[in-house]
Amino acid sequence: MTTDQTPTYVESGKEFDRDMNYIPDRITADGRDGWPVEPGRYRLVAAKACPWANRAIIVRGLLGLEDVISLGMPGPTHDARSWTFDLDEGGKDPVLGIERLQEAYFARYPDYPRGITVPAMVDVPTGAVVTNDFPWITHDLYFEWRDHHKEGAPNLWPDDVREEMDDVMKRIFTEVNNGVYRCGFAGSQEAYDSAYDRLWTAMDWLEERLTDRRFLMGDAITEADVRLFTTLARFDAVYHGHFKCNRNKLTEMPALWGYARDVFQTPGFGETIDFDQIKAHYYVVHTDVNPSGIVPKGPDLSVWHTAHGREKL
Amino acid sequence: MTTDQTPTYVESGKEFDRDMNYIPDRITADGRDGWPVEPGRYRLVAAKACPWANRAIIVRGLLGLEDVISLGMPGPTHDARSWTFDLDEGGKDPVLGIERLQEAYFARYPDYPRGITVPAMVDVPTGAVVTNDFPWITHDLYFEWRDHHKEGAPNLWPDDVREEMDDVMKRIFTEVNNGVYRCGFAGSQEAYDSAYDRLWTAMDWLEERLTDRRFLMGDAITEADVRLFTTLARFDAVYHGHFKCNRNKLTEMPALWGYARDVFQTPGFGETIDFDQIKAHYYVVHTDVNPSGIVPKGPDLSVWHTAHGREKL
Repeated sequence: MTTDQTPTYVESGKEFDRDMNYIPDRITADGRDGWPVEPGRYRLVAAKACPWANRAIIVRGLLGLEDVISLGMPGPTHDARSWTFDLDEGGKDPVLGIERLQEAYFARYPDYPRGITVPAMVDVPTGAVVTNDFPWITHDLYFEWRDHHKEGAPNLWPDDVREEMDDVMKRIFTEVNNGVYRCGFAGSQEAYDSAYDRLWTAMDWLEERLTDRRFLMGDAITEADVRLFTTLARFDAVYHGHFKCNRNKLTEMPALWGYARDVFQTPGFGETIDFDQIKAHYYVVHTDVNPSGIVPKGPDLSVWHTAHGREKL
Repeated sequence: MTTDQTPTYVESGKEFDRDMNYIPDRITADGRDGWPVEPGRYRLVAAKACPWANRAIIVRGLLGLEDVISLGMPGPTHDARSWTFDLDEGGKDPVLGIERLQEAYFARYPDYPRGITVPAMVDVPTGAVVTNDFPWITHDLYFEWRDHHKEGAPNLWPDDVREEMDDVMKRIFTEVNNGVYRCGFAGSQEAYDSAYDRLWTAMDWLEERLTDRRFLMGDAITEADVRLFTTLARFDAVYHGHFKCNRNKLTEMPALWGYARDVFQTPGFGETIDFDQIKAHYYVVHTDVNPSGIVPKGPDLSVWHTAHGREKL
């Protein structure tokens, strides 16, 4: 997901309000929307730079779906119109044969009026986007593609904590995942101040929650951890400075920082994080926040590989 | 000193190059430039926001010159033309009777072509700027105003280390005081990358130097410490994010952070630091770096008052 196509994010004086209207189709085992689960049929288009796309990359890997759903990866920067496949040979996605993700949206709806966002699930035979509804994409990778999960795939949606997990994920979405954008794209000092307070109230809640829990829902990683992790991975590299989320660095929050490294060092997570692409994306694309387009050299990100000591929890 | 009047600091692709041409007159005991030391005759105009002006405020206080040189203080923000006395009653400096510091420059040179900078020493009878040559201003407060220093004023320029101190101050000026601006106003990624490397090479040198020395030149505070301190005081509040000096926060450099707090907590230093004015200045005035003009709420600056443990050195 991204609304990063537009050069100005908010009207001056306004609060950032994410457009939550996505193409709502779902790929399901029973194919009720016309898109049945079918190995090899769909291509996940997900930029490594984007936190919302990063979720889908992680879940696809954790569940072992690499051989049944292929992955197309646009580069970190894009223009006002679309994510582009500028990292691929000839500037084209090798499976879809397109230069701009926009083409796959137009193949579905010739006059598609909204932002061209990642992640997107694309139907390879028609080249058309099936859905870009990011929370459902990871949900369905788990529940609808079960027959294709690898042996020993983690239970990302444990029944016994599902109700609480839904609450936790909702708060993480509104206050943290989206909260950092609310800080960075605030259209007034007042909107920013309020966004900053909301963010740090939630960060303090998470710090406390993770002080005596190894992961958000207990001893095992769930979808809630995937959703928090992709924001935390970008925190010091981007959100702290670029989005003015600067009460503390993540490294200054002991439980959250230990937790973030614990998840990062879990197979399937850290490998999906490309700090260079992440920094290039935000600092280059958001010309209204960073007109020079200059990408900071700091901070030192090698600290992500240091010992976290969370095994004892 | 500030070159902050111009909306664009560097030509695209260029390195930031500070205009070092100041009005070179000096106020001396022998009055050889026509400006003799004379209690009550001069007014120091110095904004609390500005690191170069901050030096003069500190030195004036350390030497006990408050009763012989008065102090005028423009507000933290200003427009493209001048610093203004917007914090004073009626928006006018109560002694000089002017709204804009520019008027004192024009009283000296009607067509003064350069930036209107602080600190400036103004001749009260004529309302004209005598000098804005900031390194000489603090030098002369020490050497030329000796007859008016308070009893027990510190020896800010000790003879026995003077040669080394000149080298240390030169390196601090080019690499740190000015180095942070070189990062923030770089006109290209290449110029920024090079500026960042220069800055952090110098920061690492200072970290090492201060590991076994309480102050830069040994056991006592000197002019060199004044010059380093006013940059360090602004580091996490502004330079880290706004100028992309973000390898580390100052709080992550153990010796430098202990040292900075030690100086901050020394009478005559911390009282001159107004973090709100400092943040307002940079984030509001530099619209080419921060178009929104939004001032970050972070970081938590109460940490400046914590114990530093440097007495043992």
